[in-house]
Amino acid sequence: MAEGLSYREAGVDRAAAERAKSRIAALVASTEVDGVLSKVGSFGGLFRTPTGMRSPVLVSSADGVGTKLKVAIRAGRHDTVGQDLVNHCVNDILVEGARPLFFLDYVGMGTLDEGVVESLVEGLALACRENGCALLGGETAEMPDFYAPGDYDLAGFIVGVVEEDGRPGAGRVSEGDRLVGVASSGFHTNGYSLLRKLLFERLGLELGDEFPGSDTSVGEVLLRVHRSYLRSVHPLVQEGRVLSLAHITGGGMPGNLNRSLPEDLQARVDRSSWELPGEFRGVMEAGRIDEREMFETFNMGVGLVLVVPEEDADGVVGALHGAGESAWVLGDIRKRQGDDPQVLLA
Amino acid sequence: MAEGLSYREAGVDRAAAERAKSRIAALVASTEVDGVLSKVGSFGGLFRTPTGMRSPVLVSSADGVGTKLKVAIRAGRHDTVGQDLVNHCVNDILVEGARPLFFLDYVGMGTLDEGVVESLVEGLALACRENGCALLGGETAEMPDFYAPGDYDLAGFIVGVVEEDGRPGAGRVSEGDRLVGVASSGFHTNGYSLLRKLLFERLGLELGDEFPGSDTSVGEVLLRVHRSYLRSVHPLVQEGRVLSLAHITGGGMPGNLNRSLPEDLQARVDRSSWELPGEFRGVMEAGRIDEREMFETFNMGVGLVLVVPEEDADGVVGALHGAGESAWVLGDIRKRQGDDPQVLLA
Repeated sequence: MAEGLSYREAGVDRAAAERAKSRIAALVASTEVDGVLSKVGSFGGLFRTPTGMRSPVLVSSADGVGTKLKVAIRAGRHDTVGQDLVNHCVNDILVEGARPLFFLDYVGMGTLDEGVVESLVEGLALACRENGCALLGGETAEMPDFYAPGDYDLAGFIVGVVEEDGRPGAGRVSEGDRLVGVASSGFHTNGYSLLRKLLFERLGLELGDEFPGSDTSVGEVLLRVHRSYLRSVHPLVQEGRVLSLAHITGGGMPGNLNRSLPEDLQARVDRSSWELPGEFRGVMEAGRIDEREMFETFNMGVGLVLVVPEEDADGVVGALHGAGESAWVLGDIRKRQGDDPQVLLA
Repeated sequence: MAEGLSYREAGVDRAAAERAKSRIAALVASTEVDGVLSKVGSFGGLFRTPTGMRSPVLVSSADGVGTKLKVAIRAGRHDTVGQDLVNHCVNDILVEGARPLFFLDYVGMGTLDEGVVESLVEGLALACRENGCALLGGETAEMPDFYAPGDYDLAGFIVGVVEEDGRPGAGRVSEGDRLVGVASSGFHTNGYSLLRKLLFERLGLELGDEFPGSDTSVGEVLLRVHRSYLRSVHPLVQEGRVLSLAHITGGGMPGNLNRSLPEDLQARVDRSSWELPGEFRGVMEAGRIDEREMFETFNMGVGLVLVVPEEDADGVVGALHGAGESAWVLGDIRKRQGDDPQVLLA
């Protein structure tokens, strides 16, 4: 054998890792909120449990960004996917009524690219600040032989808190309640394998080309940030005005709205209550995709659905408008008979 | 254009995902502990904050398994890496004095392989049970075009709890304290890029061949499970007998022991206090790797280091023996002068 092996030779550069860490430290510090006890670089992130609550319950969720990452990588723009991830996680725990406390990330890449990591963390930190959530820790793993050059995967973990009593949930829903839809900002983070196949492979479009059904570029539409509904919706949850919620992600309304209802009730979504945003219509037509398939894959312009009492439906819509959301009465809750689907697109 | 596109055609199979989810549900249920409020499949995992504590602090950590995964994939054995990940996370928060509450995982793979996911979760669930920790949630992402067939990445996220007062930490260490080393079970999860390069590329070994310096096979040595020190060490932490701890991971003793000391003190590790396990010596010799490089890459047989008062060092070693660990007085704490390294291998 020729020479001795060093770790760097085997594809891992510890000095570069240290440099990236120190740049990231400042970004992380910018997200500090009440409760954070630890500094960057400790073995574990420390967060004091919230005080002044009757019976606090921690709510936690893990998520990835999915193949939207490929669009970010193709565009060489890495700050938006960090925001996507945080906002996705924030919405997931908002469904349980929780407000976020802290967030941790995992980045896997072949060879550490400090610029990319810094951009990713910029996006994570920005969204953490916007959601009042501490970026408490994370792990960046160099995985030579796993990721193609330039590729990476990004996952996130969030912990929030909610009072045990009075949480929204399926058990609080009854016949006659109303569905309130809150508009998405676009595709959020779901359906990107299909979108990429259609736009880049079938249609041969480039990032700078016009998105079908839209006057905006493919890159811009695809990288639009997943919207966080915390600021507009959490106050309504705290006031007890929201009976149940669904975050419309993979599986669309049929695959998510069901999770916020009891077995014996049906959500009847009135298709005529909103106009399909141009980019969804464009994808459906350009891909000759069945409408049912569209609804099971994409959010179709509805990022979050609230179940509210009939008498407060207009009030909730008004409050959401006041908070800057586009929102409307999307449908209602009915008795479910025999083989009825739990989510009916009517 | 020929035909309409479906999501499955684009590489994502939702039905397979649903089948895997239901098999996993039973494994997840097996890890339930006091505090768990949610069922599998909810948007967020719910965990009641621990009661009966004076000032509970949450301790959280994110981690990956690194390129040890490549060995698991090569061997077609996926249950041990789940254990590695949980145990690694458990040890990381144990350093802050915490016991684990719950764990979440993230798996990214090209096409969902239900068998592999089930094996991974078996390992995660087993280790969660062993550590008294709930497997509270997780995300399995199908990422066509990211991962080569058969490849996957696995990340984990843990939340534990510790009393704010009396936590171990650098501030409690002073001159004259003793270091107690606790044996690792092997390479744990660090240095695998180097190990793979040496064993498979340079030496051309197969998984069934004998590991250099050992009478065990390459596959067996490389997949040995990262040891959890919770059961043996947490009681000592709770009794206040441990001043500070370091989990020896990437960077070895020089890169981790420093994190558990104040700037003005030095950890003097007595190299003659333990015999290098055969597999570490075998790697050093077969790879002609500098001993310093070895110590900065591998744990060298020491998985965890405790800092304890001089007068209790033998007592702690005895208690660890009683709990089934191999442990010994590894060195001591001295004043650090000028340019002294913070961790001295003497």
